[in-house]
Amino acid sequence: MLRYWTAGESHGKTLLAVVDGFPAGIEIDTDSIDYDLRMRQGGYGRGGRQKIETDKVELLTGVWKNVSMGSPVTLQVINRDYKLEKLKELERPRPGHGDLTGAVKFLGSIRNVLERSSARETAVRVAAGALAKQILAEFQIECIGFVDELGGHQIHRQAGDIQQWRTLREQSEVYSLNPEQDPEIKQLIDQAEEQGDTLGGILEVHISGLPFGLGTHAQWDRKLDGRIAQAVMAVQAIKGVEIGLGFEAARRPGSQVHDPITYDADKKDTPSLGFERPTNNAGGLEAGMTNGQSLVVRAAKKPISTLRQPLESINLDTKQADTASYERSDVCAVSAAAIIIENVVAFEVAVAFCEKFGNDSISEMKARYDLFQQMAQQR
Amino acid sequence: MLRYWTAGESHGKTLLAVVDGFPAGIEIDTDSIDYDLRMRQGGYGRGGRQKIETDKVELLTGVWKNVSMGSPVTLQVINRDYKLEKLKELERPRPGHGDLTGAVKFLGSIRNVLERSSARETAVRVAAGALAKQILAEFQIECIGFVDELGGHQIHRQAGDIQQWRTLREQSEVYSLNPEQDPEIKQLIDQAEEQGDTLGGILEVHISGLPFGLGTHAQWDRKLDGRIAQAVMAVQAIKGVEIGLGFEAARRPGSQVHDPITYDADKKDTPSLGFERPTNNAGGLEAGMTNGQSLVVRAAKKPISTLRQPLESINLDTKQADTASYERSDVCAVSAAAIIIENVVAFEVAVAFCEKFGNDSISEMKARYDLFQQMAQQR
Amino acid sequence: MLRYWTAGESHGKTLLAVVDGFPAGIEIDTDSIDYDLRMRQGGYGRGGRQKIETDKVELLTGVWKNVSMGSPVTLQVINRDYKLEKLKELERPRPGHGDLTGAVKFLGSIRNVLERSSARETAVRVAAGALAKQILAEFQIECIGFVDELGGHQIHRQAGDIQQWRTLREQSEVYSLNPEQDPEIKQLIDQAEEQGDTLGGILEVHISGLPFGLGTHAQWDRKLDGRIAQAVMAVQAIKGVEIGLGFEAARRPGSQVHDPITYDADKKDTPSLGFERPTNNAGGLEAGMTNGQSLVVRAAKKPISTLRQPLESINLDTKQADTASYERSDVCAVSAAAIIIENVVAFEVAVAFCEKFGNDSISEMKARYDLFQQMAQQR
Amino acid sequence: MLRYWTAGESHGKTLLAVVDGFPAGIEIDTDSIDYDLRMRQGGYGRGGRQKIETDKVELLTGVWKNVSMGSPVTLQVINRDYKLEKLKELERPRPGHGDLTGAVKFLGSIRNVLERSSARETAVRVAAGALAKQILAEFQIECIGFVDELGGHQIHRQAGDIQQWRTLREQSEVYSLNPEQDPEIKQLIDQAEEQGDTLGGILEVHISGLPFGLGTHAQWDRKLDGRIAQAVMAVQAIKGVEIGLGFEAARRPGSQVHDPITYDADKKDTPSLGFERPTNNAGGLEAGMTNGQSLVVRAAKKPISTLRQPLESINLDTKQADTASYERSDVCAVSAAAIIIENVVAFEVAVAFCEKFGNDSISEMKARYDLFQQMAQQR
Repeated sequence: MLRYWTAGESHGKTLLAVVDGFPAGIEIDTDSIDYDLRMRQGGYGRGGRQKIETDKVELLTGVWKNVSMGSPVTLQVINRDYKLEKLKELERPRPGHGDLTGAVKFLGSIRNVLERSSARETAVRVAAGALAKQILAEFQIECIGFVDELGGHQIHRQAGDIQQWRTLREQSEVYSLNPEQDPEIKQLIDQAEEQGDTLGGILEVHISGLPFGLGTHAQWDRKLDGRIAQAVMAVQAIKGVEIGLGFEAARRPGSQVHDPITYDADKKDTPSLGFERPTNNAGGLEAGMTNGQSLVVRAAKKPISTLRQPLESINLDTKQADTASYERSDVCAVSAAAIIIENVVAFEVAVAFCEKFGNDSISEMKARYDLFQQMAQQR
Repeated sequence: MLRYWTAGESHGKTLLAVVDGFPAGIEIDTDSIDYDLRMRQGGYGRGGRQKIETDKVELLTGVWKNVSMGSPVTLQVINRDYKLEKLKELERPRPGHGDLTGAVKFLGSIRNVLERSSARETAVRVAAGALAKQILAEFQIECIGFVDELGGHQIHRQAGDIQQWRTLREQSEVYSLNPEQDPEIKQLIDQAEEQGDTLGGILEVHISGLPFGLGTHAQWDRKLDGRIAQAVMAVQAIKGVEIGLGFEAARRPGSQVHDPITYDADKKDTPSLGFERPTNNAGGLEAGMTNGQSLVVRAAKKPISTLRQPLESINLDTKQADTASYERSDVCAVSAAAIIIENVVAFEVAVAFCEKFGNDSISEMKARYDLFQQMAQQR
Repeated sequence: MLRYWTAGESHGKTLLAVVDGFPAGIEIDTDSIDYDLRMRQGGYGRGGRQKIETDKVELLTGVWKNVSMGSPVTLQVINRDYKLEKLKELERPRPGHGDLTGAVKFLGSIRNVLERSSARETAVRVAAGALAKQILAEFQIECIGFVDELGGHQIHRQAGDIQQWRTLREQSEVYSLNPEQDPEIKQLIDQAEEQGDTLGGILEVHISGLPFGLGTHAQWDRKLDGRIAQAVMAVQAIKGVEIGLGFEAARRPGSQVHDPITYDADKKDTPSLGFERPTNNAGGLEAGMTNGQSLVVRAAKKPISTLRQPLESINLDTKQADTASYERSDVCAVSAAAIIIENVVAFEVAVAFCEKFGNDSISEMKARYDLFQQMAQQR
Repeated sequence: MLRYWTAGESHGKTLLAVVDGFPAGIEIDTDSIDYDLRMRQGGYGRGGRQKIETDKVELLTGVWKNVSMGSPVTLQVINRDYKLEKLKELERPRPGHGDLTGAVKFLGSIRNVLERSSARETAVRVAAGALAKQILAEFQIECIGFVDELGGHQIHRQAGDIQQWRTLREQSEVYSLNPEQDPEIKQLIDQAEEQGDTLGGILEVHISGLPFGLGTHAQWDRKLDGRIAQAVMAVQAIKGVEIGLGFEAARRPGSQVHDPITYDADKKDTPSLGFERPTNNAGGLEAGMTNGQSLVVRAAKKPISTLRQPLESINLDTKQADTASYERSDVCAVSAAAIIIENVVAFEVAVAFCEKFGNDSISEMKARYDLFQQMAQQR
């Protein structure tokens, strides 16, 4: 059972993710984790904090001579901006944040809640996902998250495979698959900044090379679509999740939604086992199980809740009307969210992968993977 | 810890839901469960099976003299159309169903998978949710699910509170909040039927009367938004989930998304504790916790995967191209989905409610609810 | 993930166990489940209820043409002695039962609690374990539970393997491995009955043929020794659990406790892989993982809490001193407990087995088992 | 839901415990955690490592101005003896350890397994338990673990309450409740050391001041006795667990086991609510729920598996007979185990306490505790 939890506050000493059930025998590539951490901090529209932090992962446990031991792996990202002990309580809850809900629920301070509910915590969710992707990489499973829409502006992706898309994403300051549209998107963000406003957007994740049969239909809480939806919706500021066509699937007739099944014997040694689909409207999941096609997940991120031009709020002590408190923040973190969503989805896929193929040692997993492909071909 | 699992096949003897952690001391209203079961079977566009089944719940365990005992409650819905032992294997997997994914994953038969992945199973998810709503009802928390869009056709809901909406839903053959639009919607469904096609749609759930503080921000897997998203996406045929504004939130600037906070001392004895929000774009959840406003969840249901005009598929034994198998099915089950989504969301809310207020006995829960409202007022 | 829960009251309509995650493709042998159910009802010293009930399992879900489908399997045992609706509340809590604890915790009736906490519920725990043993049987893993001590009287087991022990257990009216001692044990029970008293005893379970590596050392809640201890201690009336030497291990020096490791190439194709141990003081578990030797678990069952010569208690309404209520009961159920403990231990072993080898289909599990044995030989 | 996991290797950089669901508003007393850490390192018979380490806890997350925030609390204990990167693989598995089981299961190195399965990990289990005891302390619930038997030598405890016992334990170099017996016990340990052997023993934990109703009878995996047994048996080197009379309960007739119920109105404002029991053979648990009496748990610890006079083993690479590897170790760690068992039991009790009374804020928990006592008195 692969699983993880995080700990840490926005301005606390450190952020941690403990990844339990990580298979033994994988040589850990910390550079690729750091790459995702750096990407999470980037993207056009970020504020001052990202200049303070230069997140790097440290592996505290679970690794010997850089190879996973089968023990829990602890990923640490130190907060350079550690100042929690000097910070004060907030008085005026910021709409959209957990300030009000948490202060009431816990009958306590706003600071307690905002420090933990802050999106800063996603640094270690990214680290956990980036670690999990190293399992997937052993099986040539590749992942990418990108920005598909920003501030209501649709971006027209260029054609390509995940490798090519990754290059495009590198070239785009907003992490889209069309760097040529960057100027118009950056202008949108600049305008929002001038107005003291913030912007949201839509992220898309693709995972290719997946075998059949991750997830199961047999019990509601084990279906992979549900588990992915949980992981995505539980990310700060996410208000919508789609798989494959998503909401569009609800608007088309069935004949234009379901993906025909064909068979191509030449591809029987690929993850699809030769079962090809001319379309992938299902986004790679049917009945909560992977179907040999790419996984496609989309997420809607609302604009950042902290506005320089603050929203109407109250003073929680006096109950008098006032404007919301302001703490340093970004104008737009949609690009970062592309990286975050990529990683939380990848983690759930890795969980399902470990359920199917085990998680004791990578050598046993590989032998089992081959075995399954053989047995499935002969089914 | 309130939790549930289901068991049972589409054409098996029986369907069961075991609800563990249901509080003691609640007088069970089976009529209201049967009402939801009947609603799930109805709606314009259903096929022959719904005429065979007249689902009624039977409480097998956990109840003494019609009052809950604190033991697991088992809800049974008998399949009148029990014929599993006589049924044959399918050869041509139906696109959109789990036929292919499951046959490969389990290295076995399509029948094994379709019998369990069938939406027939949602009968007992509805029963479990309808039972959980009886906890919520003790606290004047009310729920409704309705059809907001069908086959790409937007329905313009009439204004009202949940009670009034329920009356409207009763009057609508498609379970919308605008019975006057029924004729156009029914015509859409009739057309699809003529063409051997199927239709999907968009469902919306509202839950009112919720107190502050259900769910928590503190760990990703305990956030209520994530747990609701899982429950919804794990329903058969659902491909998208939104909370509050959902994807629309990604398209607006922050100033038009976040809900201002005001205080109205006259309402301090209501679940909102006087913290009023002129808008509810957050859909009642901030940082994964309820904020005293109504919960609003939306789901996208794809069209039914079984088409009378079958899709392109293969024979799984010979790998030769063929049309998909056909098993008796509906043209449109969007109305049913409104009931299903209402109930799976209600169940998760009840889970979070029991986490906050306990689940030993309803008398203790009520006293604690009052205690929390008092303490929260004085925070 | 193999898991199960039960539902049902002592005098309710029915008892149920839902077994989720049971692999597809196993032909179910209900006779062997019924055998264990019958054994659970037998043993010298049982009272009137066992004459009323003749437990037989019914498979309600998860099976097609008698073969498991990969869906949840529901096991039902009907209560012939269904009379819950006619029963009355108890007033005088019986020491040793949950009567007092539950009535206070749930702020409610004693009846509510006793109906669920009754050992009658173990019928379906036995059924679940007997089902799980059918997974183990596919791998020549064999289980037995027997009485090692009764009423303080040690029974001297005869030598043999599990098959021979099963024959001995069949011949013993008290389910010991020495039928010749039956007369003295039965006399003990008869004496207790005459005195209106009850007797407890010590059970032992052996499971042979286990491969290496079930369970893991890596996280406290995944260690197999802990999980077995939970399953055993959670059985009604159990107050102690031992693995291998158990408490005796605490009394010997290390040189007389730890099992030397030898290697016998002739046995490298057996589950032990050739790693032989001249002793098995560890009871088959080192660091929470199976070590290729037989699993040995022992449990202490206290005497039945319901005494015909009732204990001192109070009237819960008046708080006045009184004797405890009496409901029909047995004098000694130690033999039954041998069957129960065998089955709850077997279930946990099957859980760990499915964690190691997967639980999609028995064909894939078998191929993986062989694969692991090969890879492990070459380690 | 209060829960915890640990991470870290014996000779790695650090050991960590993440405690999730810890209530907000508790002022953390790190001294008391350090006290338990120091005690865990002490006791007569320890070896060289304990001189190197002087464990102190560091709170990495979840605390603001020394008060818990409702976020996950991370407890860190740094390994001064960090040298993992310089260590070599072992070749000759040590009987009693996970060396052989783990190397086979993970198809990998012995070092990987021993580093994680080492009892060094219990440092942070102790820290987690010591933190959890600070919840219990808010409700005047007190805990002690002590050595009852060592190397087969029974120690005759002096009478007293938990406070007095704690003083006695302080005075005893072996953490017994009879410092006067220390000389004979120390002599036993000295003898074992001379012989290159090791000793085990029996630990006992008492927790007083517990309210009614922690745990539940309603589902097997929620019973408190089972959960405690898991926590205890999952501790390194534990081979047996008892609650109350334990195995002795199996040897007495029922009339001498079950604890009569009396009522003393003068004590109705105490945790027992006035329901007194002249004996406490049940050890505070009936039907998996606390009954207002002290919890009594016993555990059997086997002797340390690493012997200076090594056991017979093999070279795992050559399969040739050889003696087991030796890594620096203690002669007797029974005293340490008393502290460990105290803390793992305390953690499970705190989990059940939070289930009953919630875990959002300590202020709400206290109000609910009082509310329950009132309601329970009037039942």
